[in-house]
Amino acid sequence: MQNFDFYNPTRIVFGKDRLQELDQLIPKNSRVLVLYGGGSVKRFGTLDKVLAGLGNRTVFEFAGIEPNPRYETLMEAVDLVRRESVDFLLAVGGGSVMDGTKFVAAAAPFEGDEESLLEHGFAGLPVEQALPLGTVATLPATGSEMNMGAVVSHKGGKWPVMSPLLYPTFSFLDPSLTFSLPTRQVANGVVDAFVHVVEQYVTYPVNAQIQDRTAEGILKTLIEVGPVTLANPEDYDARANLVWAATSALNGYIGVGVPQDWSTHMIGHELTAMFGIDHGQSLAIILPSVWKLRKEQKREKLLQYAERVWGIVDGSEEERINQAIAQTRAFFESLGVATRLDQYGVKENQVADIVEALKAHGMTELSERGDMTPEISHQVLIDAFSE
Amino acid sequence: MQNFDFYNPTRIVFGKDRLQELDQLIPKNSRVLVLYGGGSVKRFGTLDKVLAGLGNRTVFEFAGIEPNPRYETLMEAVDLVRRESVDFLLAVGGGSVMDGTKFVAAAAPFEGDEESLLEHGFAGLPVEQALPLGTVATLPATGSEMNMGAVVSHKGGKWPVMSPLLYPTFSFLDPSLTFSLPTRQVANGVVDAFVHVVEQYVTYPVNAQIQDRTAEGILKTLIEVGPVTLANPEDYDARANLVWAATSALNGYIGVGVPQDWSTHMIGHELTAMFGIDHGQSLAIILPSVWKLRKEQKREKLLQYAERVWGIVDGSEEERINQAIAQTRAFFESLGVATRLDQYGVKENQVADIVEALKAHGMTELSERGDMTPEISHQVLIDAFSE
Repeated sequence: MQNFDFYNPTRIVFGKDRLQELDQLIPKNSRVLVLYGGGSVKRFGTLDKVLAGLGNRTVFEFAGIEPNPRYETLMEAVDLVRRESVDFLLAVGGGSVMDGTKFVAAAAPFEGDEESLLEHGFAGLPVEQALPLGTVATLPATGSEMNMGAVVSHKGGKWPVMSPLLYPTFSFLDPSLTFSLPTRQVANGVVDAFVHVVEQYVTYPVNAQIQDRTAEGILKTLIEVGPVTLANPEDYDARANLVWAATSALNGYIGVGVPQDWSTHMIGHELTAMFGIDHGQSLAIILPSVWKLRKEQKREKLLQYAERVWGIVDGSEEERINQAIAQTRAFFESLGVATRLDQYGVKENQVADIVEALKAHGMTELSERGDMTPEISHQVLIDAFSE
Repeated sequence: MQNFDFYNPTRIVFGKDRLQELDQLIPKNSRVLVLYGGGSVKRFGTLDKVLAGLGNRTVFEFAGIEPNPRYETLMEAVDLVRRESVDFLLAVGGGSVMDGTKFVAAAAPFEGDEESLLEHGFAGLPVEQALPLGTVATLPATGSEMNMGAVVSHKGGKWPVMSPLLYPTFSFLDPSLTFSLPTRQVANGVVDAFVHVVEQYVTYPVNAQIQDRTAEGILKTLIEVGPVTLANPEDYDARANLVWAATSALNGYIGVGVPQDWSTHMIGHELTAMFGIDHGQSLAIILPSVWKLRKEQKREKLLQYAERVWGIVDGSEEERINQAIAQTRAFFESLGVATRLDQYGVKENQVADIVEALKAHGMTELSERGDMTPEISHQVLIDAFSE
């Protein structure tokens, strides 16, 4: 096991009908900005419950944070925060709203060019102050509700912002608030959580047994509850297990003391930025091809994954690995998520542009070993088309 | 899944040779009290490394916190804290030192009879202030390094103190600091961690899949690394996995949203208080008998435990459960921990006194269902003697 630090101070408030407890978790005299996306939190009544929970506090609203939240949109919220001396941010929505709110929390007190807070491509200055923020999470997927990271879209790229100051103070996870989500978003969420786990697990072994077994437990849970919750969105227990699986996939716990990959995410980000492919879809396209091209580097962990997650024990090592990759792809497809680039209208002659974008964004030494060159990413992308 | 809150702000600093980082984690002008037990932290050089890490801060020492820390001993430390205006506590040791330090943290600023902070038998007043504390954990067992609980021995009983204010600010977990532990303490630690897990897992099913699978992962890890780390104490990875397993067993993560038992602990506490039986030993004695007597109430989870942890799938339900209980007992015994009361010199005619002590301490409605009467505890204790 590698040396590690673990720190995660977010308070999770999990379960049905608890939004009235917002009142106990936000300072009484706060000037609160509630941030959300489209109209669904209004339409399904979540926003009203949130506003009721905020009691007599001075409350402002900022609507319109889009999927893959854009820097320009978020800077409008920053202006509102400054103008109205807002001192607490409350994100109500999915990963994009939570990520966007984290950026607003960091940017509002920042005295400089706010662009420079974005990592890679920009200055990536450390976040030295941030407004406190909480979340009411309405989409199980990104894990943003219990981690310190955010991704912001800007100038054709997706840029991370990370700081311990950006852990939400609290996050409300009410599975019943997610019942009304469109099937596609739930399916994407299952894939997103699944790939978060394997980016931290299918690397090379360092004898970190708790991390490995916890990761395997999350994967098995997703495989089990994914189809159930898609078929019956109002099955509370299935949805509750999906919600907690998604949070557990990226709250840091399975990632401590182990190597991490993230190449699928980095390549996937370019697909989202260039073609508007949903984040979850982009991961479902790229992961199987990364594994196919990186079999040697990931051999031991792919075999462990095959056996412990899918129960594959027969055949040669090569056969077991191939079967595990095939079952992973089949799992994504069973959720209704297509796994081939051409199914999203991308052409093989566009691959060179995708690789150029990766290079432009500094993504030239990907994977847990840092040895995944743009040439290998090119092969991955070519492999991601239908045979 | 049941509704739950999860909150655990302790920072874990895990790995080899990191004690110099103490300097960054404790405020510069602190007046620090270092609390420890017997001489082993001195003898093996841990104390020197800790003192070096504290730099120029004003440091006091309090030695002599005994196993099952006594109220009177801890009140001496409270006096020292008050006399010297100590404002940061640093526990260097195992569960007893960490637990004792938590009590000191709560008692020092308390303006009243400090006894009233103890739960059950005493007033159990809420902790409303506490000094900040950190730990350097030298024994993988209790999980105290990453939770908010403590147990204090007083007037013939073992009493809990619990408060979110008692989470350590940080805990250093350096597996190599535990290499010098006596075999018996390591074996007890494996049992303690194992039983912490099953007290939160072998109850009744509520469809909490992440919690269940994470619990199973910790149990499988303990079964795998327990014998390895006993046979070869300086195998870093094995010990590292034991250390992180023990912390993970009782940091709250597997216990959220599920029923919890703790009857084995409560009965075990009386054995420690009355006969000086080690805490880990007391659990190894009681657990198999609790399961045998509570088969019906725990049927589904015992079957799940049998299958997922031990791979027991053949035979009738009764046979599978019996085999799981037998393998659990055999596992404890393989670690060198005897599992029968008479092996510790206790006589059957003393059982009535143990049950009286349980009653005197309010332990009359034990288990996840609250239906475990003193009569059932009596049966459990009788069953705990050799056939």
